[in-house]
Amino acid sequence: MTGRHAATSLLRTAEPALRRFASTSSATRTPPHLLTLADLSPAQIGSVLQSAIEFKSAFRAVSLAHPESSRKQLSAGESPIPQSLKNKSIAIMFSKRSTRTRVASETSVASLGGTGLFLAPSDIQLGVNESLYDTAKVVSSMVDGIMARVGGHDEVELLSKHSTVPVINALSARYHPTQILADLQTMLEIYAPKSSPTDLGSLAGLKVAWVGDSNNILNDMLVAYPRLGIHLSVATPAGPAYARDELVWGTMQDGLSALSKSGSSPVALGQVTWSNDPAEAVKDADIIVTDTWISMGDEAQKDQRLRDFRGFQVTEAMAKKGGAKPDWKFMHCLPRKGDEVDDEVFYSDRSVVFPEAENRKWTIMSLFDRMFGRWEL
Amino acid sequence: MTGRHAATSLLRTAEPALRRFASTSSATRTPPHLLTLADLSPAQIGSVLQSAIEFKSAFRAVSLAHPESSRKQLSAGESPIPQSLKNKSIAIMFSKRSTRTRVASETSVASLGGTGLFLAPSDIQLGVNESLYDTAKVVSSMVDGIMARVGGHDEVELLSKHSTVPVINALSARYHPTQILADLQTMLEIYAPKSSPTDLGSLAGLKVAWVGDSNNILNDMLVAYPRLGIHLSVATPAGPAYARDELVWGTMQDGLSALSKSGSSPVALGQVTWSNDPAEAVKDADIIVTDTWISMGDEAQKDQRLRDFRGFQVTEAMAKKGGAKPDWKFMHCLPRKGDEVDDEVFYSDRSVVFPEAENRKWTIMSLFDRMFGRWEL
Amino acid sequence: MTGRHAATSLLRTAEPALRRFASTSSATRTPPHLLTLADLSPAQIGSVLQSAIEFKSAFRAVSLAHPESSRKQLSAGESPIPQSLKNKSIAIMFSKRSTRTRVASETSVASLGGTGLFLAPSDIQLGVNESLYDTAKVVSSMVDGIMARVGGHDEVELLSKHSTVPVINALSARYHPTQILADLQTMLEIYAPKSSPTDLGSLAGLKVAWVGDSNNILNDMLVAYPRLGIHLSVATPAGPAYARDELVWGTMQDGLSALSKSGSSPVALGQVTWSNDPAEAVKDADIIVTDTWISMGDEAQKDQRLRDFRGFQVTEAMAKKGGAKPDWKFMHCLPRKGDEVDDEVFYSDRSVVFPEAENRKWTIMSLFDRMFGRWEL
Repeated sequence: MTGRHAATSLLRTAEPALRRFASTSSATRTPPHLLTLADLSPAQIGSVLQSAIEFKSAFRAVSLAHPESSRKQLSAGESPIPQSLKNKSIAIMFSKRSTRTRVASETSVASLGGTGLFLAPSDIQLGVNESLYDTAKVVSSMVDGIMARVGGHDEVELLSKHSTVPVINALSARYHPTQILADLQTMLEIYAPKSSPTDLGSLAGLKVAWVGDSNNILNDMLVAYPRLGIHLSVATPAGPAYARDELVWGTMQDGLSALSKSGSSPVALGQVTWSNDPAEAVKDADIIVTDTWISMGDEAQKDQRLRDFRGFQVTEAMAKKGGAKPDWKFMHCLPRKGDEVDDEVFYSDRSVVFPEAENRKWTIMSLFDRMFGRWEL
Repeated sequence: MTGRHAATSLLRTAEPALRRFASTSSATRTPPHLLTLADLSPAQIGSVLQSAIEFKSAFRAVSLAHPESSRKQLSAGESPIPQSLKNKSIAIMFSKRSTRTRVASETSVASLGGTGLFLAPSDIQLGVNESLYDTAKVVSSMVDGIMARVGGHDEVELLSKHSTVPVINALSARYHPTQILADLQTMLEIYAPKSSPTDLGSLAGLKVAWVGDSNNILNDMLVAYPRLGIHLSVATPAGPAYARDELVWGTMQDGLSALSKSGSSPVALGQVTWSNDPAEAVKDADIIVTDTWISMGDEAQKDQRLRDFRGFQVTEAMAKKGGAKPDWKFMHCLPRKGDEVDDEVFYSDRSVVFPEAENRKWTIMSLFDRMFGRWEL
Repeated sequence: MTGRHAATSLLRTAEPALRRFASTSSATRTPPHLLTLADLSPAQIGSVLQSAIEFKSAFRAVSLAHPESSRKQLSAGESPIPQSLKNKSIAIMFSKRSTRTRVASETSVASLGGTGLFLAPSDIQLGVNESLYDTAKVVSSMVDGIMARVGGHDEVELLSKHSTVPVINALSARYHPTQILADLQTMLEIYAPKSSPTDLGSLAGLKVAWVGDSNNILNDMLVAYPRLGIHLSVATPAGPAYARDELVWGTMQDGLSALSKSGSSPVALGQVTWSNDPAEAVKDADIIVTDTWISMGDEAQKDQRLRDFRGFQVTEAMAKKGGAKPDWKFMHCLPRKGDEVDDEVFYSDRSVVFPEAENRKWTIMSLFDRMFGRWEL
């Protein structure tokens, strides 16, 4: 049966009795979704980060006031985190393993007073046992929000299209918005003045070098950083496997020209360069970022990939030779394998990978509070 | 060693010192269990459904009063759901995957203020690592209720026999009581008058056609519907693989004759017919229900089963030809495969499959509140 | 790259800007860890057990006062358990399956008002995807405590070394401290006078016979029981596979001589004997303890092990022949296979295996309250 037939039949078989379900349906307004940072204006990104920074800071302050635990001894009414998920259940649906995102998500739900349901890869096989449409309808009728780590980006698009509750992309083949939010919070912790720790404008003019794969992390940087005035110099290996994602590239350009035309950006837009030369990419870089060369699913191409990435390992020598700024910092979304960065850099004081990982929690908490707790972005 | 020896030794080795454990044992009253709807009187079924409908309605009302989320923005003291599982832990033990039942169960526990422990197929291998008896004793000593999705029905029987806390059958090879409760709630939403939305009597006289496998869904309909005055016409393929379960059939007859003898039924009892002809089954049907033809474990017989079920797909043409009522409705417990119902019917306004799925949550919440929260049925 | 190079580079690349992370770090005091009972003084063991017994008793008293559930009907403010994990998240990281420990841990977290994150073997592959060091840093930055069931004992040592929150060993190849705490609580329930149910001194002079494998359960008995005045007679099969763990043996001796030198022990220290003869071990025993002969990972050696353990099955005849005390009791950490103990003993009134299992929960709850809730031991 074709889709056209189906549409016809939908009209033909419309039954008044069924309207009762429609009228009692809970979703009377389209829920907010977040699939990529391209969905957010610079002001919205700033606002999400502001809450994240405030949560972290308030939390630490309370902990310091309760030395008996050196940490988080809070009695009931004292939580510095809004209890906006009280009586709410959040589905954390992962079709692939992802420890960091999962722990950040589950602890964020708990901190906001809600209950998280972790649906593991073995529990939920998106699109296998039943159509993704059916899953979206059913799961969203029972929970108050969905944090979804899927395979193809089209899966999370379909999920959000048919969900009656907010959907956040926890990681897709194309985008990884929550990682880039954590990276931005970490950059604010390094570069923002103490007097205005949430001022996104303080990141304008920084140069971030991406030396690695053409992947979802890079893609979300592309659609976010230039709009915030952050320059991005990319080096990927030569060859079609590492070329830019044209759809992402178009989205980036659309975002920049919209911002340009509106004349609303308070900062000069960032420049993007792309080459196949790590040395060229790290020239004058404030931050060097990379990721594993062998993502989940790439294992079969391991030998080929190791050859393709020859010369791409981030090391002190490589950064010096390329001319990175003397006080350059290192970022990585983890988990880290040894190939892409050596121990000297990874465990040095240049490396902000552990604060970066912890900030996954604070940025996700900020998103959950806004989107699942208050249906706004 | 034989069981008789064991019994003897139990007497022979009785030790007074051990009595201390017996006297401090927490279970001083037999807990209520629900293994099939045959365990419930029509009045009890009505009572479970009344709470389910009230929970759903109260929940929606509060949501409407809080448009900022269009949904479920509730502050602490405001929950319309009783917090009867406060400080309680519920084990959700699944020896097979079951997304819908699991999400409904975990969110229900959370809504009632408790904590759910999801014990996945890989975590708990009932009867494999240790005897089911030992598992029942140990797990029930640590939790306040068990929602168990097992294999054979004898497993959940054994579990409930030795558990010191209430056990609910979340799905066994023989019965699926929580699904039929959700179906009944959905039927009340369609057929009950607005002035008395929980009146089970309004379902008396309806005709439900089951066109499909001889399985656990059908079995729980058989032991419930006729006692509620609902007629049931069954069509399964010919052959011993699709014959009626004689134990279920006997239970159904016992239930009907007990009701008959007591003279307590406020409605005329429903009629049950069984054939191998879908057209005969759907004649004058108000509702057509089916389920997948290939349940978990049937995959090896897929080709044979597709042949056996030829002519059983639910379609507009089949319903019209068989003479179903013009405004017949379609139900399905999900997940749905394409074989047993076409898209035209499944996604039409006749289809109440998504409200039916959502009602899994409200009926399970009602059961948990009564059985785990208040130890009554 | 060698470790020495790494250390040099750490000094060389120290960056002042990074100090901000250090100064805002949450861990300003070393968290308490529990890897084996050797970490605890007799007084600390007594204190953990006292809370466990008080929790169990208070809980039962409240349940008896609420007969409507025959069990645990508690309204909000009424919980007899301190809510010391309110607003806290505890990671329950298991690299191997362990139903009892898991259920005890998750329900304990819930009873103390916190949220447990169960990280299953398939979710968290310690040391596989990334270094254990990285996992320790990342996970401990997001949660308030870690209950870890690992493989080698060095794994939990490394985890605790780098974690910024308390780590409890839920089971390692070398030690199993939470099991022995549950055993001690069970022994107090049998042997302590009603007037002082938490008096550890009442266990001094008892003789415990271990008839089984040379494993983690035995090891934690060795480092705990003699210091509490409990005698321990061990029988394992002959051969190097069942020899004592010299590191454990040294730890035991160090503990005893420290206690001896300090002169602080209120009881005479217990004696330890070790043979390959079950009959010799059970002579005058108050308690006989065993465990499965085929632990997870031993399956390949099953036939060899069954031969090695010939004559080691705990039975009435074996205990009588060896000269155990007439009212000897039987303990087992579960799950039980049939080889190591027959049904007659296992299901007799001598057997305290089910209270012993339930006490896993109360002792773990006591540890969580102290260590995760109050950062003390």
